[in-house]
Amino acid sequence: MNPFSIPTAEDILDARRALADVAVETPLLRSDALDRLTGGSVFLKCENLQRTGAFKFRGAYNCLSRLDRAAYPGGVVAYSTGNHGQAIAMVARMLGLSATIVMPQDAPAVKIAKARAAGAQIVLYDRNRQSREEIAAEIAARAPVAVIPPGDHRHIIAGQATVTAESLQQIGAQVPHAILVPCGGGGLSAGTCLAVEAVGARSEVWAVEPEGFDDTRRSLASGTREVNAALSGSLCDALLAPLPAELPFSINRSRLAGALTASDADVLRAIRFAYEELRLVTEPGGIIALAAVLNDPARVRGKTALVIVSGGNVDPGVFKAALDLDLAPLGWAA
Amino acid sequence: MNPFSIPTAEDILDARRALADVAVETPLLRSDALDRLTGGSVFLKCENLQRTGAFKFRGAYNCLSRLDRAAYPGGVVAYSTGNHGQAIAMVARMLGLSATIVMPQDAPAVKIAKARAAGAQIVLYDRNRQSREEIAAEIAARAPVAVIPPGDHRHIIAGQATVTAESLQQIGAQVPHAILVPCGGGGLSAGTCLAVEAVGARSEVWAVEPEGFDDTRRSLASGTREVNAALSGSLCDALLAPLPAELPFSINRSRLAGALTASDADVLRAIRFAYEELRLVTEPGGIIALAAVLNDPARVRGKTALVIVSGGNVDPGVFKAALDLDLAPLGWAA
Repeated sequence: MNPFSIPTAEDILDARRALADVAVETPLLRSDALDRLTGGSVFLKCENLQRTGAFKFRGAYNCLSRLDRAAYPGGVVAYSTGNHGQAIAMVARMLGLSATIVMPQDAPAVKIAKARAAGAQIVLYDRNRQSREEIAAEIAARAPVAVIPPGDHRHIIAGQATVTAESLQQIGAQVPHAILVPCGGGGLSAGTCLAVEAVGARSEVWAVEPEGFDDTRRSLASGTREVNAALSGSLCDALLAPLPAELPFSINRSRLAGALTASDADVLRAIRFAYEELRLVTEPGGIIALAAVLNDPARVRGKTALVIVSGGNVDPGVFKAALDLDLAPLGWAA
Repeated sequence: MNPFSIPTAEDILDARRALADVAVETPLLRSDALDRLTGGSVFLKCENLQRTGAFKFRGAYNCLSRLDRAAYPGGVVAYSTGNHGQAIAMVARMLGLSATIVMPQDAPAVKIAKARAAGAQIVLYDRNRQSREEIAAEIAARAPVAVIPPGDHRHIIAGQATVTAESLQQIGAQVPHAILVPCGGGGLSAGTCLAVEAVGARSEVWAVEPEGFDDTRRSLASGTREVNAALSGSLCDALLAPLPAELPFSINRSRLAGALTASDADVLRAIRFAYEELRLVTEPGGIIALAAVLNDPARVRGKTALVIVSGGNVDPGVFKAALDLDLAPLGWAA
């Protein structure tokens, strides 16, 4: 098995089988308010209700359950903006593996605390001065541990692909015209593209990135992986990869319909909408695809859209900022 | 059809058929943190994700879809602490009926606004000085409209019973030892008891009431319907019926295993738990059954429990109070 090769349709089926008894089959919800607002049929895939509160559980479990334990008696090390690390920590505990998680100092405190509670060793780093890849590589050089990247791995991408594979099965006959996906390093977007391809659907897949961190949008335009100017400074802490990951981008570049962006203010509005109309707790990076729909509801008018809600691990302070928004300018309240 | 007779197993099946294409089959979620905390298997039935954000949609639709329109050309009138009114307003719009909703002045503003937005006429009253039943009866005396009570109706109770009927089907072989249900007038508790009885399960059904509004607990003890001392003064606005409703109590008195209470502080903790560990937005009266579990986790140790989460229409101010709680004394954070 080459971990850097593009997952096949069979890999996605294998991942679904591996996850069948351990992952939550997360609900596909609709909202009367959202359908009224857009004039379309919008389905929300609620991966914030996944174990560990994010879709990352899927890739982590699919990857770690296939780990060659004889080759890596020291377990695994992962670098992560938070949710991937949390998923690796929990899955490692489930499977009886040791885990070390390299996390940025400015990750939400709740994510750091939970990874630690799951029994992982935590190594913190400065997002602006250190390279997480280098720290993980150093750890792997000193001991027989496998580095589990957030996107650059066939089994990770196959795991993330199950979000959309499962959604398409739940949605049945009403194949979505468009699928909107939060995008950081691009693993979830890539998995989405492959899941669509695997069933021969013709849905357009749109990546949604934070304003100022539109590396995938610019990379699609130039054809080569572009780097973000900054490494921090967005509410969407889960989506702040420095540039598109290599394997995901090799998938996304020819398959994505395009990339959209949403600002911090857009994302807070979307968190509030999800609170008010969907009764869901979502995190900024997790709800950014809904933010893109709310920014331009006409995009889905008369269409069926699948919006992937990828995570719900949000600091209370950020959630309170969404609750403090004035309702009137939100545009959906009657 | 006698609207004051106890629903049969057939009535519950009829309700499931009526709701099949219109209600959300709400997810039954689990939480790793909750199972660890209790040492049991806890399933949460998420009716906060139901249309209108509460289970009340079920009874409202089941009842209004069977309305004799020739007898009631003026449509329907309902009195409600909020969620029932909202459900009646929305269902009336779906079915092309006129609706008037009698709501207390101190109901959450969001509930009043949404009922109005759904096209209902709103009549506000003072919970401490006026009788909502009398106001509704006066309206019905002046025009050919049907009064739709929140609990005292066979079709309403049969609709609410579908929450548990559906849960038992979703849960499969693992029949719960205990089912914990938020209790105001008692319609949901009654429906739960009947749904359990209909499938011959032996689950204990426990009603959970707000501290100081334990009319069902005292009524079970005395054998006759007891009145609450106050009519307001709990965060659980959805559960402030003045006394158990007649038809529900006739069902509950011989079928409930008992009634538990939870304080405002307990309920805020449960809202925070649901935010943190389940990524769900819940309202005080909607999450009170989880509060009872968190108060006494040993109650479900080694057992399977079904906790009904009945609603998620919460004022932002109340939610912020839950977010402001210190994590440490909550007891579940590692």
